[in-house]
Amino acid sequence: MAVGCVNRAAPFLLLRECSKLKHLLKCVTCGREFEPEPSLYTCPHCGDRFGTLEVLYDYDRAHFDSLSPHSELGIGQFLPLLPLEGLPELPFVVGNTPLIKLEKFERRYGLKAFYLKDDGRNPTASYKDRATYVVIGKAQEWGFKTIFAASTGNAATSLAGLTAAAGLKAVVFVPARIPEGKLAQLLVYGATVLIVDGSYDDAYDLAVEVGFKKGWYCRNTAINPYLLEGKKTGALELALQLNWDVPDVVFVPVGDGTVISGICKGFMELKKIRRIDTIPAVIGVQAEGSDIVKRVFEHYIATGEIVLMDREASTIADSISAGKPRDVVKAVRYVKETGGTFLSVSDEEIGTALVSLARETGVFVEPAAAASYAGFLKMAETGDLKNKRVAVFATGNGLKDVKTAQSFVGKALRVSNDPEEAFRLLDKMETV
Amino acid sequence: MAVGCVNRAAPFLLLRECSKLKHLLKCVTCGREFEPEPSLYTCPHCGDRFGTLEVLYDYDRAHFDSLSPHSELGIGQFLPLLPLEGLPELPFVVGNTPLIKLEKFERRYGLKAFYLKDDGRNPTASYKDRATYVVIGKAQEWGFKTIFAASTGNAATSLAGLTAAAGLKAVVFVPARIPEGKLAQLLVYGATVLIVDGSYDDAYDLAVEVGFKKGWYCRNTAINPYLLEGKKTGALELALQLNWDVPDVVFVPVGDGTVISGICKGFMELKKIRRIDTIPAVIGVQAEGSDIVKRVFEHYIATGEIVLMDREASTIADSISAGKPRDVVKAVRYVKETGGTFLSVSDEEIGTALVSLARETGVFVEPAAAASYAGFLKMAETGDLKNKRVAVFATGNGLKDVKTAQSFVGKALRVSNDPEEAFRLLDKMETV
Repeated sequence: MAVGCVNRAAPFLLLRECSKLKHLLKCVTCGREFEPEPSLYTCPHCGDRFGTLEVLYDYDRAHFDSLSPHSELGIGQFLPLLPLEGLPELPFVVGNTPLIKLEKFERRYGLKAFYLKDDGRNPTASYKDRATYVVIGKAQEWGFKTIFAASTGNAATSLAGLTAAAGLKAVVFVPARIPEGKLAQLLVYGATVLIVDGSYDDAYDLAVEVGFKKGWYCRNTAINPYLLEGKKTGALELALQLNWDVPDVVFVPVGDGTVISGICKGFMELKKIRRIDTIPAVIGVQAEGSDIVKRVFEHYIATGEIVLMDREASTIADSISAGKPRDVVKAVRYVKETGGTFLSVSDEEIGTALVSLARETGVFVEPAAAASYAGFLKMAETGDLKNKRVAVFATGNGLKDVKTAQSFVGKALRVSNDPEEAFRLLDKMETV
Repeated sequence: MAVGCVNRAAPFLLLRECSKLKHLLKCVTCGREFEPEPSLYTCPHCGDRFGTLEVLYDYDRAHFDSLSPHSELGIGQFLPLLPLEGLPELPFVVGNTPLIKLEKFERRYGLKAFYLKDDGRNPTASYKDRATYVVIGKAQEWGFKTIFAASTGNAATSLAGLTAAAGLKAVVFVPARIPEGKLAQLLVYGATVLIVDGSYDDAYDLAVEVGFKKGWYCRNTAINPYLLEGKKTGALELALQLNWDVPDVVFVPVGDGTVISGICKGFMELKKIRRIDTIPAVIGVQAEGSDIVKRVFEHYIATGEIVLMDREASTIADSISAGKPRDVVKAVRYVKETGGTFLSVSDEEIGTALVSLARETGVFVEPAAAASYAGFLKMAETGDLKNKRVAVFATGNGLKDVKTAQSFVGKALRVSNDPEEAFRLLDKMETV
């Protein structure tokens, strides 16, 4: 199946040569295998929700010892584990985001290590650029000129930004409650934006119906199996930044279940290629008002059965608001395999976590990203993380949704141009 | 004057040892020299506007061959050329921002090379983090617990974010028209924010009056000579990323004149230590409604005299709106020394440049950053840049001010959850 690489002496060249690597697609439910082709997204036998496809590589024959640090390539350095023939044509790299060690949290919660993976520092300021990178590469390989997506915001802004950079066209379907910063990104990048009168789930259904009839390439993660391959690079990069000594526990915000599925798959593949010995327990954190994946997981653990449990979602964390989670099957299976679990946090806990994270670390994240930190805080308080090495994925920049953040902080003091008034105000604050 | 470093064999250690390097402060007008001390900001003989101080190193004796790539330190890798004893205590690095090569611009304008230095990818999303990094280091050395600043927005948000990360306190004075994204950052990071009923220039005067009486450390660039040392790292980093083969022409947005002074000084110091042979021509780009530095420069070139020309400023590019530019003396002297010049662009040109840059490159910048690109476009159209190697500094992220960006783009299409309606809308757009 795979075409191996021969030039072991020159890792940089090796990466490019490995791009010849072949892959297969396998249905996550029935196990049927398929050869890749542009029009194949999900298993024709199992349908859209149960028939999501997994990308499989020939882990034994490929020379994955070529996975060595080339941070100047961003996630392109993981090409041997990506379903691409070569690096996408983009003027900038994606990934290579900061991994921030925070000793004050280690001391406070008795952890062996605490890391914050700040993916809000990606080109369009969210984790989603990792997946878009791969979809740009596939579109370029297969000759698509237009890519469509439904999104709560970040996937769309990522698609808009990276298609602009690559000279492709984006058509995006977003729900009416998309935050202002994300909408501005879409319009400035020049995407065709359809604001759907309804929820993210409505936007999703409409996008699929329209986009496929138009013959455009699809950037809906749960449908297009290649996006997960981009999303797994968060795990690969975290592991590489820690010199393959992965944490014990990893926290990930969960809406549709796609990011967490990707992160689990990344760790599982690193184990398959013997880069790591043990897989971190991956903890999915949902908002209480959008916790379907958690419910499905709990039922799955209790009964061994995966049962869909769609219901309306509502949370301030727009990026993880999904009432009909599209990647629930992979998410619950993979998380179980890592020995992880799911938990939920309230909107109040998300807002409090957002503010305290910014004030304690200088990292301003969007509400969805604050959810994973809130989940960490919840578990840290139980003592279950004592002496553990912990990583928290922050998946989006706070500047994308300043309105929600502002609702959790006070107002600024207004002062006339008069020093005496300024002194009085400041004194008053100090004595409060 | 300087304490040299001895360990030539281990560059990483060498960087740290070089931190013992001493520096002097020299008045930019009368030339008097001073030993550094916490309470010395400007020359007591020449006053605040003319008496700005310059940081001088012993360029001959210091071992600046230790300036070699350590991008994992961000701008900390330039410690031999920073006025710090050691690296500031911060959980993340500043700088090491992407340098993006854009071949389509090279072809279109007949350039030998075009680079965009995307400093909106800094921790708080602006160039100002470079200066704040140094001020955090000095505050930690000298034992200050509170730092104050007046700012149009970015310097304040940078101070708020980095003090939060360092466990220090920030008090910031900002004008009433600060964009929403920047205000949100300030409040979320937990700074004490005083919104001054007036312009940036009013906020500046008030801050100085209040802050010094309170005994806080000052992060006003034109007053505190150390901030320029952080701001020069944009030039050092650009040069390092190009393997010391610097561009012919560099475009920089200009308000107070501090960033451009820093960038000029960076290049001049690289020449002093013989890392580069020629200094790029540094072009300052101002908004037409805030073009005092340009006017002072033109008068200076014509007469040899530097005459202050304060007047009210008004532009959509809030970060470079300064009616009483504080670093005008350094800015005009240094730019002349590089063989550069100043030009101005209209708000309309700034908005158009912002949108076209985003749509052609996927890089969404704030209006001030778009100004330098607009300045590039203006000069490129005259043909003066033919066969030149050009770099444009983008100094802030577009997410910091989405309202202004949105005023230059159309609205999104609204659609009900009905595929037929979506098709009709899309068809209509395609035929327009």
